[in-house]
Amino acid sequence: MVNVGIIGAGRIGKVHVESICTKVADGKVAALADPFMNEETEAWAKEMGIAKVTKDYKEVLADENIDAVLICSSTDTHSVISVEAIKAGKHVFCEKPVDHDIEKIQQVIDALKDSNVKYQVGFNRRFDHNFMAVQEAVASGKIGTPQIIKITSRDPEPPALEYVKVSGGMFLDMTIHDFDMVRFLAGCNAEEIYVEAAVLVDPAIGEAGDVDTAVITIKMENGAIAVIDNSRKAVYGYDQRAEVFGSDGMVSVSNDAASSAVISSAAGVTGEKPLHFFLERYMDAYAREVGCFIDAIENDKETPLGIMDGLEPVRMGIAAGISLKEHRPVKLSEVTV
Amino acid sequence: MVNVGIIGAGRIGKVHVESICTKVADGKVAALADPFMNEETEAWAKEMGIAKVTKDYKEVLADENIDAVLICSSTDTHSVISVEAIKAGKHVFCEKPVDHDIEKIQQVIDALKDSNVKYQVGFNRRFDHNFMAVQEAVASGKIGTPQIIKITSRDPEPPALEYVKVSGGMFLDMTIHDFDMVRFLAGCNAEEIYVEAAVLVDPAIGEAGDVDTAVITIKMENGAIAVIDNSRKAVYGYDQRAEVFGSDGMVSVSNDAASSAVISSAAGVTGEKPLHFFLERYMDAYAREVGCFIDAIENDKETPLGIMDGLEPVRMGIAAGISLKEHRPVKLSEVTV
Amino acid sequence: MVNVGIIGAGRIGKVHVESICTKVADGKVAALADPFMNEETEAWAKEMGIAKVTKDYKEVLADENIDAVLICSSTDTHSVISVEAIKAGKHVFCEKPVDHDIEKIQQVIDALKDSNVKYQVGFNRRFDHNFMAVQEAVASGKIGTPQIIKITSRDPEPPALEYVKVSGGMFLDMTIHDFDMVRFLAGCNAEEIYVEAAVLVDPAIGEAGDVDTAVITIKMENGAIAVIDNSRKAVYGYDQRAEVFGSDGMVSVSNDAASSAVISSAAGVTGEKPLHFFLERYMDAYAREVGCFIDAIENDKETPLGIMDGLEPVRMGIAAGISLKEHRPVKLSEVTV
Amino acid sequence: MVNVGIIGAGRIGKVHVESICTKVADGKVAALADPFMNEETEAWAKEMGIAKVTKDYKEVLADENIDAVLICSSTDTHSVISVEAIKAGKHVFCEKPVDHDIEKIQQVIDALKDSNVKYQVGFNRRFDHNFMAVQEAVASGKIGTPQIIKITSRDPEPPALEYVKVSGGMFLDMTIHDFDMVRFLAGCNAEEIYVEAAVLVDPAIGEAGDVDTAVITIKMENGAIAVIDNSRKAVYGYDQRAEVFGSDGMVSVSNDAASSAVISSAAGVTGEKPLHFFLERYMDAYAREVGCFIDAIENDKETPLGIMDGLEPVRMGIAAGISLKEHRPVKLSEVTV
Repeated sequence: MVNVGIIGAGRIGKVHVESICTKVADGKVAALADPFMNEETEAWAKEMGIAKVTKDYKEVLADENIDAVLICSSTDTHSVISVEAIKAGKHVFCEKPVDHDIEKIQQVIDALKDSNVKYQVGFNRRFDHNFMAVQEAVASGKIGTPQIIKITSRDPEPPALEYVKVSGGMFLDMTIHDFDMVRFLAGCNAEEIYVEAAVLVDPAIGEAGDVDTAVITIKMENGAIAVIDNSRKAVYGYDQRAEVFGSDGMVSVSNDAASSAVISSAAGVTGEKPLHFFLERYMDAYAREVGCFIDAIENDKETPLGIMDGLEPVRMGIAAGISLKEHRPVKLSEVTV
Repeated sequence: MVNVGIIGAGRIGKVHVESICTKVADGKVAALADPFMNEETEAWAKEMGIAKVTKDYKEVLADENIDAVLICSSTDTHSVISVEAIKAGKHVFCEKPVDHDIEKIQQVIDALKDSNVKYQVGFNRRFDHNFMAVQEAVASGKIGTPQIIKITSRDPEPPALEYVKVSGGMFLDMTIHDFDMVRFLAGCNAEEIYVEAAVLVDPAIGEAGDVDTAVITIKMENGAIAVIDNSRKAVYGYDQRAEVFGSDGMVSVSNDAASSAVISSAAGVTGEKPLHFFLERYMDAYAREVGCFIDAIENDKETPLGIMDGLEPVRMGIAAGISLKEHRPVKLSEVTV
Repeated sequence: MVNVGIIGAGRIGKVHVESICTKVADGKVAALADPFMNEETEAWAKEMGIAKVTKDYKEVLADENIDAVLICSSTDTHSVISVEAIKAGKHVFCEKPVDHDIEKIQQVIDALKDSNVKYQVGFNRRFDHNFMAVQEAVASGKIGTPQIIKITSRDPEPPALEYVKVSGGMFLDMTIHDFDMVRFLAGCNAEEIYVEAAVLVDPAIGEAGDVDTAVITIKMENGAIAVIDNSRKAVYGYDQRAEVFGSDGMVSVSNDAASSAVISSAAGVTGEKPLHFFLERYMDAYAREVGCFIDAIENDKETPLGIMDGLEPVRMGIAAGISLKEHRPVKLSEVTV
Repeated sequence: MVNVGIIGAGRIGKVHVESICTKVADGKVAALADPFMNEETEAWAKEMGIAKVTKDYKEVLADENIDAVLICSSTDTHSVISVEAIKAGKHVFCEKPVDHDIEKIQQVIDALKDSNVKYQVGFNRRFDHNFMAVQEAVASGKIGTPQIIKITSRDPEPPALEYVKVSGGMFLDMTIHDFDMVRFLAGCNAEEIYVEAAVLVDPAIGEAGDVDTAVITIKMENGAIAVIDNSRKAVYGYDQRAEVFGSDGMVSVSNDAASSAVISSAAGVTGEKPLHFFLERYMDAYAREVGCFIDAIENDKETPLGIMDGLEPVRMGIAAGISLKEHRPVKLSEVTV
């Protein structure tokens, strides 16, 4: 049994608490920390059977009963707490991104060098049933050598403007999942990125210095060409698809809906919209990623996504930012510590 | 080149004229006969390059240049003209049904015995790309031994009441196509039929002595169980599907639409309705069946549907009528001349 | 918090234990009884946090801490234990069927008359996301008046012959789910049933006195015509579909698969097979039905399926058996206590 | 009735002859010219009822009975014959591309200035039922303002190397159709193009100086971002899809197959591959485009694609070539006569 401390009791922290409590047999949430811990959350934690509730995550790190921590706090604290947790000998599951600043990620890499702790980055989509099936088809050679990789990733609605301003920009906030997916599906790193982006959804996003629509072309190290298309607003819901085309065929996945019901009427033949957003679409994936983390600890396996999987998508996001600004293809080799 | 005379210049007669003129290289429409021939039709026939236009089909039968006739006149004349045409040495393509009375069909059978003419019955659906694919999958053994055969056949709207009254009833008018399809897909004849039917679309149809909704179960001679569901009114359009389930799998086909366009919006994910009715859905099938008829004549092959294929669905329709009336399963062996 | 005792630790009993432990917040499994309780199961029960483990279900009924029982024992004990549990003042969730003998179901009905306990029958498919969507579309009037109801229900493989012999026959064992589904979708009871069935899968099933393939036509009290097609063996997996056709349109659902991945290759365009069998397909439905039962107790609501919902499908199964034997349509009114 | 002369009796010339003979009521093929005219083609032409057959297209231009010509000769002759035909007062339908050299297209534009002839360029895909439905959805506002346009266009197999060498390169030979499609769907011209391309299918194509795989990003004048992905070899067949995403939704189309038959077996759920190549996929579109041309002449309408629609895709192809060579985004304004 792995005793887990959750650092950060926001939306995603709570998702992980519920997953571990209900779906991960070998994990137990022993502590929950949040600087804004309130009575309501405390009561909820009690109900979930969490023994220790605190405002100070350092108490969790200091607790000898805790084997591992899940860092679900705000992005700017991820790398710092990661380093502290590693030094405290705790296994670490860190929500994405590890940091927007690759120097800070380098500090985590350095801290891991002399440690024996497991480290996993929270790119949940790798654990989605559909994307797992695509990756499996590619990795098993069913489509031959991958040549074109296409990812569609569109949110149902833009985040609050306040969030946009501190998000690090669309590429580091939203596309970062797709950058990880491209690496997952191609089985290699990116070599060069070109961005065509615009503000087509909401001018206020542009005024905040960000974009909301993008088509991103990526040359992968294995020669495949990847393309991601992003929008901050798809009125029909969360659009999450992928397609890999190769020398022997193509694998593609479509969106999930709440049911397969189709109504044929005088107005047309109508099925359900995709599941609304990430909590609906990826709930099983969240449980699966945490299950893998616990399994890696229990059975001394490698985590499925290590710290380098945390670094590369951030480098890609930075390269995308340079491409947007300088309007040219940017090599990943330009983005170094 | 086969010279063809068309007897009957109604909707389906015109469809065949157009097919032969534009899609059947080896056929030529040399004559068109209709007792209600008018100026408009005559002008149209001229435009289509038809040399002889007449009110009297007997002129067509007497014309030595004519090799074959297509009988597209009203149902009550099919068997009589068939016999006359056979005696005149013309090859015959006869629209379905050959007759509602199996004694009259027997007369056609008798006439054919001493003749050398080709005879084909117009069950056009056998030439539809989808149903051909189902039959091919079954016949080639791809699904093993057929066990359950399901046919959905629903019209977009009921015919005019005047027509309902003279139609011979839904089973002989509409379901007859499905009776043929069941034989086509199973590769054998029916043994027993049970009907559950009702008037659910329009009470006036019931007052006219007919039904408008039915589920018909058929035991086939090879042991497979078939089920047809019919409605005179599907508001979403002409619903024409089939599914065959067997020991090694299942083959199924869906409806055709004008395009594969799907619109995803806040209201749902909506595709097009099925093609409206038989002229839209089966236009290619009409051309293909006539092409086969011409080919059978030119190259002295068997026609794909002979007179026995005209007889059996009528027997099934009669058995269905008895089942409805007497509310019991009816063996095909009960229906004899 | 509702304290639950589970009677029967077989496959389905364990499913319910897991559901309640991980997905039903307001329920707690306080006891588990099984006459064949062994060390392995006992250890598993401990791990799931179940305080009381026993071979004797009467201990569960006698336990004052227990609010409700789930009867997951063998079918022949369902009605007896139901009556005992009701008399002991326990709320009852009873797996389907309540009994094969409607007199025994009548005893449960009688026992409930003077009691205040909640009673729910375990027709899990009503809680499947797809069938819920169909029912919702029908009940909300989206397809108008229902006219034709079609249910396809095929198992991936027949049960062991030993089981077939004691199963009560395919209609009471397998089709009973579809009989419930027809009532659920139509929103009314059946009036008359006609069966066309055969032994097409395995002659040994026939030798055991049962059938393995059937098409069942049902006249519903609201005038709609329903048709169920069953097979004990679909090589492509568990086939569970439904379609309701009405005056204003049609609603239909397709099977669930593990992912939406489709591989296009030189061999064709291939997607995944349906989920293998009921444990894969209906896992969420099992959790949902038990959640509803707990909710009904906690909040004093009606259970979604009462004892009459346990009775009617059994009457339909008996009528189907008569129809098969006597080869005629059978009215439900013929099947009385 | 419009009398048409066909210049070029190769594959596509013959397609147009057949379309006009069988599907375009108001057109008549009066002449067929080809420098390599042989006996076989001459016999075929006779059978199709073509009165004049010649090796010299100038005879066609000189024939006073001819109203219009279809230029289906080799690409390098398109612009020259266009100018000659215009000067001879013939309406012109010219296969794509008008020329690889925009100066030569300018000569056609100049020739048209003082003439009254109709001019249509043969971008057949605009007349495909699926792409027409996408365009209609966009143009009618059903998806709001277009923001992202995606086109997948993959051939089943690369052309012969000899052809590759004289093809003008993939962008002017193959992608040119997609460049036209992007303009058709967006309803505006392109502003800037960026190409990521590679030789992934056949090294010999690279040695011939061309690429075989590409992802092309295009900024449209209306602000939408378009992306085309191309491959010279999709083993599963001709892959021709499009998707337009906008402020109010998305419209997308999938490939056409010969039938909708799906076989479910122990191996999976398998449907048919897309129609093999352009002759199968676009046969109806070829007939429709020629029908529109004849209609424009008969009824003095504008042709659906004028000479500017011939110019723009060539400019896009040239810009794409520069982008590939110089590895940078290229503005269309850089490509001028």
